[in-house]
Amino acid sequence: MPPHIVSHIANLPSVTPFVGPEALERQRGVKFRARIGANESVFGPSPRVVEAIARAAAESWMYGDPEQHELKAAIAAHHGVKAENVAVDSGIDALFGIVVRLCVEPGETVVTSLGGYPTFIFHCDGLGARLVRVPYKDDREDWPALLDAARRENARLLYFANPDNPMGSWVGASAVQTLIDGTPDGCLLILDEAYSDTAPPDAIPPLDMSNPSVLRFRTFSKAYGMAGVRVGYCLGHADVIRHFDKIRNHFDVTRMSQAGAIAALADQAYLAEVVARIARARARIGEIATANGLKALQSATNFVAVDCGRDGTYARKVLAELIARGVFVRMPGVAPLDRCIRISAGTDADLALLAEMLPQALKAAAT
Amino acid sequence: MPPHIVSHIANLPSVTPFVGPEALERQRGVKFRARIGANESVFGPSPRVVEAIARAAAESWMYGDPEQHELKAAIAAHHGVKAENVAVDSGIDALFGIVVRLCVEPGETVVTSLGGYPTFIFHCDGLGARLVRVPYKDDREDWPALLDAARRENARLLYFANPDNPMGSWVGASAVQTLIDGTPDGCLLILDEAYSDTAPPDAIPPLDMSNPSVLRFRTFSKAYGMAGVRVGYCLGHADVIRHFDKIRNHFDVTRMSQAGAIAALADQAYLAEVVARIARARARIGEIATANGLKALQSATNFVAVDCGRDGTYARKVLAELIARGVFVRMPGVAPLDRCIRISAGTDADLALLAEMLPQALKAAAT
Repeated sequence: MPPHIVSHIANLPSVTPFVGPEALERQRGVKFRARIGANESVFGPSPRVVEAIARAAAESWMYGDPEQHELKAAIAAHHGVKAENVAVDSGIDALFGIVVRLCVEPGETVVTSLGGYPTFIFHCDGLGARLVRVPYKDDREDWPALLDAARRENARLLYFANPDNPMGSWVGASAVQTLIDGTPDGCLLILDEAYSDTAPPDAIPPLDMSNPSVLRFRTFSKAYGMAGVRVGYCLGHADVIRHFDKIRNHFDVTRMSQAGAIAALADQAYLAEVVARIARARARIGEIATANGLKALQSATNFVAVDCGRDGTYARKVLAELIARGVFVRMPGVAPLDRCIRISAGTDADLALLAEMLPQALKAAAT
Repeated sequence: MPPHIVSHIANLPSVTPFVGPEALERQRGVKFRARIGANESVFGPSPRVVEAIARAAAESWMYGDPEQHELKAAIAAHHGVKAENVAVDSGIDALFGIVVRLCVEPGETVVTSLGGYPTFIFHCDGLGARLVRVPYKDDREDWPALLDAARRENARLLYFANPDNPMGSWVGASAVQTLIDGTPDGCLLILDEAYSDTAPPDAIPPLDMSNPSVLRFRTFSKAYGMAGVRVGYCLGHADVIRHFDKIRNHFDVTRMSQAGAIAALADQAYLAEVVARIARARARIGEIATANGLKALQSATNFVAVDCGRDGTYARKVLAELIARGVFVRMPGVAPLDRCIRISAGTDADLALLAEMLPQALKAAAT
């Protein structure tokens, strides 16, 4: 007889929050020519990161430090906080799983945006949380409405991404600070700042480690170009951060990943160079969109949401036609966001291919 | 105000299941001269693994395949099962966390051994499970008593390690099969075979993927020498395995780790060589123990439990004196197992240092 599976999991579908480009390549039987769909950094990690990982590989018979002492110290120094304010795990995704388990019991409420980050929702579903979703407003997460919902629904968690994925939009630091200050008692604000490295400085409020109502999430997966290395962290009050140790997988962050992340932090010149390249790529995506009669949304991230000008059915056709032409891109999952396709900052070659294939894809989608 | 923390976590201590050797080194202000306490493989991974990781580092801007297609295929081929019978995550520890969440609700019962694997218990504690612990018998996990307890207590999970950690003991395949067959309805048998690569062949019952009552856990952390790479997997009925996708972190296994594990599986000659070296090291640890008037327990793992001949207080003194002399070893946490210290298979140099320091440690502990 099969084992007992807890009720809130038994009936969930066996899905992945994201279908990987590798799965699409296996379906199509051919590799993508441009991989600009997962908001990875095509510019790659710092060469020093690659060296650090290769060096650590020879020592990989040793477990990584479960206290992540050196990495936490480097992160703390980088942000001017203490190590006790830092929790590290294998990507923001893993940290979201931990926070949901720390703060939410099955049936309790989590507030997020309708169309917000799927993996956060995946972890809420896996725990049997009750989700309240607030529609976007003008392609931005509607923070006053999110705050109202958190108060009204007695939410345990409130999720807010700034800059936002999948739209690339952002709000200013003063609005974020109002959101932080307004988070109701008993609720924790999940402030997802995965794209903070590419954001305008005035979008990121100062870090305040004395406030236990908010955690700030950062990652090496985006501008640092280390998505496959799996290191994310969050910053917050020591009294909140200390709970992570109670349920996290203490050996989760590999020895190579810890070494790689330390090397990445030490090479801020490389990060600055990549951020500049991302800005140029965003501008080029905007030009390509305009040349094809489409509208590129303003972006503070390493991708651009391009409004295809019609509904989700049409945008999905455009997407399929691009994929059929070897260009891996993705798109938001729900209306009205799904009138857009989402294109990550690419190399010159990637974007040349996009410029070549987009007119063909639009023509094919129109028929 | 601090956020709400769920009741079964709020009162847990913020501990690590294991204190890493790095933490001890930081306390002592000096590096260990022999790192033979965490059952890592001092013989390291295959050179092909190191190469594969270094190669993958340059591509680490890409997320690893969330379906782990190639790695699962390689594991399935290695064991003669199907990919649908394989779940992979960042070490057996991570898989244990998933299984506990899949099968147990707070207050439900899990049966394990008194002195059994701490990280499994850590995950049970983190979920608020009720733990029933069965004493070892003659330094072996007492499988008939474990089975009785699982039936009597209506357990959701039953944990059994074969070969066992921390004692190194094992039971034969027919006993394990009786345990598998006797696992009660509604209970899942967690068969931890982390040390199967160093076990006598007749300790491992044949794989049977048609039985949904048992999952078999394997790892690259021990004989494969890849503890810092974080890859473990479990084998089982497809109807059980498919639940993992519902709550696992789909990107958890890094791009380097997937490449490294594939390379490791392809180099079985290296594994065989390491297993032979482990056997020689076990014999050498036995000689050193005997020469010091201590008894080495028989072991089917990559470590040897050495009975110090008195109680836990004395063994803890011996352990502290070895650590003070630069030899990192560990020991079981509870009586009567804690009359032993646990020494991992070391290099010739590691064991020469052990042979030098053990008499001094015993002398110091006796005073």
